[in-house]
Amino acid sequence: MLSFIREMGEISRSDLAAEFSLDKKTVSGAVDELLRDSLIVPAGFKESLAGRPQELLTLNGSHSNFIGIDLGGTHIIGILADLSGRPLDRVFFEIRPGLPVDIILDQMKTICRRLMGSEKASAAVRSIGICAPGFMNPATGASIVAENIPGWRDVGLREIFEGEFARPVLTEDSSRACALAEKWMGDGKGRPDFLLADLGYGIGLAIVVKGELYTGAGNKSGEIGHTVVAPDGPPCACGNRGCLETVASGRAIARQALAGIEAGRSQLLKGLTHGKAENVTAQDVAIAASMGDPFSAELLASAGSLVGLALANAANIVNPSLLILGGGLIGTTRIMEQSIAKALRANCMREIFEDMELRVSKLGIDGSALGCGILAAADVLGRV
Amino acid sequence: MLSFIREMGEISRSDLAAEFSLDKKTVSGAVDELLRDSLIVPAGFKESLAGRPQELLTLNGSHSNFIGIDLGGTHIIGILADLSGRPLDRVFFEIRPGLPVDIILDQMKTICRRLMGSEKASAAVRSIGICAPGFMNPATGASIVAENIPGWRDVGLREIFEGEFARPVLTEDSSRACALAEKWMGDGKGRPDFLLADLGYGIGLAIVVKGELYTGAGNKSGEIGHTVVAPDGPPCACGNRGCLETVASGRAIARQALAGIEAGRSQLLKGLTHGKAENVTAQDVAIAASMGDPFSAELLASAGSLVGLALANAANIVNPSLLILGGGLIGTTRIMEQSIAKALRANCMREIFEDMELRVSKLGIDGSALGCGILAAADVLGRV
Repeated sequence: MLSFIREMGEISRSDLAAEFSLDKKTVSGAVDELLRDSLIVPAGFKESLAGRPQELLTLNGSHSNFIGIDLGGTHIIGILADLSGRPLDRVFFEIRPGLPVDIILDQMKTICRRLMGSEKASAAVRSIGICAPGFMNPATGASIVAENIPGWRDVGLREIFEGEFARPVLTEDSSRACALAEKWMGDGKGRPDFLLADLGYGIGLAIVVKGELYTGAGNKSGEIGHTVVAPDGPPCACGNRGCLETVASGRAIARQALAGIEAGRSQLLKGLTHGKAENVTAQDVAIAASMGDPFSAELLASAGSLVGLALANAANIVNPSLLILGGGLIGTTRIMEQSIAKALRANCMREIFEDMELRVSKLGIDGSALGCGILAAADVLGRV
Repeated sequence: MLSFIREMGEISRSDLAAEFSLDKKTVSGAVDELLRDSLIVPAGFKESLAGRPQELLTLNGSHSNFIGIDLGGTHIIGILADLSGRPLDRVFFEIRPGLPVDIILDQMKTICRRLMGSEKASAAVRSIGICAPGFMNPATGASIVAENIPGWRDVGLREIFEGEFARPVLTEDSSRACALAEKWMGDGKGRPDFLLADLGYGIGLAIVVKGELYTGAGNKSGEIGHTVVAPDGPPCACGNRGCLETVASGRAIARQALAGIEAGRSQLLKGLTHGKAENVTAQDVAIAASMGDPFSAELLASAGSLVGLALANAANIVNPSLLILGGGLIGTTRIMEQSIAKALRANCMREIFEDMELRVSKLGIDGSALGCGILAAADVLGRV
């Protein structure tokens, strides 16, 4: 019921009774208990032409706070959120690919500690949600493998963070966490079915079916980054060749950018790296492209074209009504999304393309961290 | 309840009561009604060490008969089945690709009429299930388009056959019909989630999630035949380029075989066509390959390799626990399936490959027709 009240925003007792097919007395009992526990609060009255005015109820965001931590390939983002998912505070750490596992874990803990002591908190932190790229073990909360973080194998995130912070820790893979945020507060709101393409240092796909995350037989669904788009292409960290991630991920774009700088193809891009070309990121490429650098624009356009091909192939199989483009590669310039849209049009069956709405995420690079905060709220709401 | 009794095979009243959380009296009332309507029959007694022997109940297959008709690219298959899905009679018509729509419809009606008057019937024909390749309109029962049948647009199958045979007509796309048969009597039995690759003149994919066919936003899911595996490949009937169907379907194999015969690359294959090379089919290629023809074996192996690549990409996204290979291209030789298996291993993420059982359909070329018979039985069972 609590989860439903959140979804509705504001709702009256009688609408609750109708939704759950319960009599008014039962609903009033349940509502009184939620009010007593401060999980919901009154929110004025429903306008009505006749009859007794009906009191509206809404979720009490300040009941408890949650921390969401997104470990990405080039950043760690921490969000402090309230029970309604509203972000209260944020910490952003840039990390260089290739950092040792224990340094990464230390940085994640530092972020967690900072948010725990945030002055912007509206209540005590109740639980923590953490996401990482790659496979997650839902039983143990361990991150099984993250191809893009060398040496990252069977990292017991839940165990480590529950030990450190003495609070429940919930874990999920980054793309699915991002889809949760879209479902709560983004373009996925009120949409039972959608796809979320998570385009960042790695590439993932979350699939929402009938309002729930589709997880696959072994909790490994959504590995669109490892669908093969270039059968004789470069070797991938996963052991295969020509995976989408090897040619179109943030990691691949950074690699191509470095090669371009070394070949003298972009002075602008080189300038952005302050003499350390080996540190060039896909973000630098996006900035250079937005400043008019043709080499950078071309890199993003080709990557977008391959991402669009892979997404078209997924759409031809799934026939979604909505595809949301999210992740760190989206937002700085429109070049990549335009190239994705073009490739979708060229490679989707026409009828399937026509069924599909294409949106660019409004959550930006924070999508997965917001989703982790929401995931943590499941500890109170029962489900998210 | 009827559908559940079918699934169980044989079940006692008290097991039914437990399954549906009903008291014995309510179950007995429902069971008596089903017995009175001859929808179920007694099936002996449950062995028990103590207590009163419990009577078992089973679906009465002879309650009613059903016709299933599968319109394929190179054949029309009709099946007469009983309520339990057991096939009683079968009619197989070979058709040449490119036949006019009205001739195809006439042949489908002829098959229907022959099965209607079959001496092997065990009861009156109650309803008819029809499948065709491509998109189906679930509201009207019309076949919207079949890329592989020229001129086939908005063919009102339900309307036409209900008008002709005065019985309910249910329609579905061929791959999903085939998956229904796998779910009832094939390797999909008792499996809540699986993928069925339908490899024939065209190529389709059916997705079963939580025991139900996944249909997509616009009833168009499963178009793996139109996922792009060769971005600069040949033009496809769908309007795009390099779709899997243009390089690996029965239609594509036949086209490649004709080119090979004309280039003098296989005397054996040429011989099988009795001087009419233009009529060569993928079936001829499979027969020639099974007789040791290297050119034909190579055609099937390359097609299998591309089918395997597309299926690996789908598996990386869906993470299925079971993949069944079915359709007319499977069964004559093992060359194609071996090549598919090899490409799956090469292109799936290792962890996803390990989650996935790979099976070859035991239903052969009849899968979709059997599924149509089962679809028709929904008219009695309520759901299939």
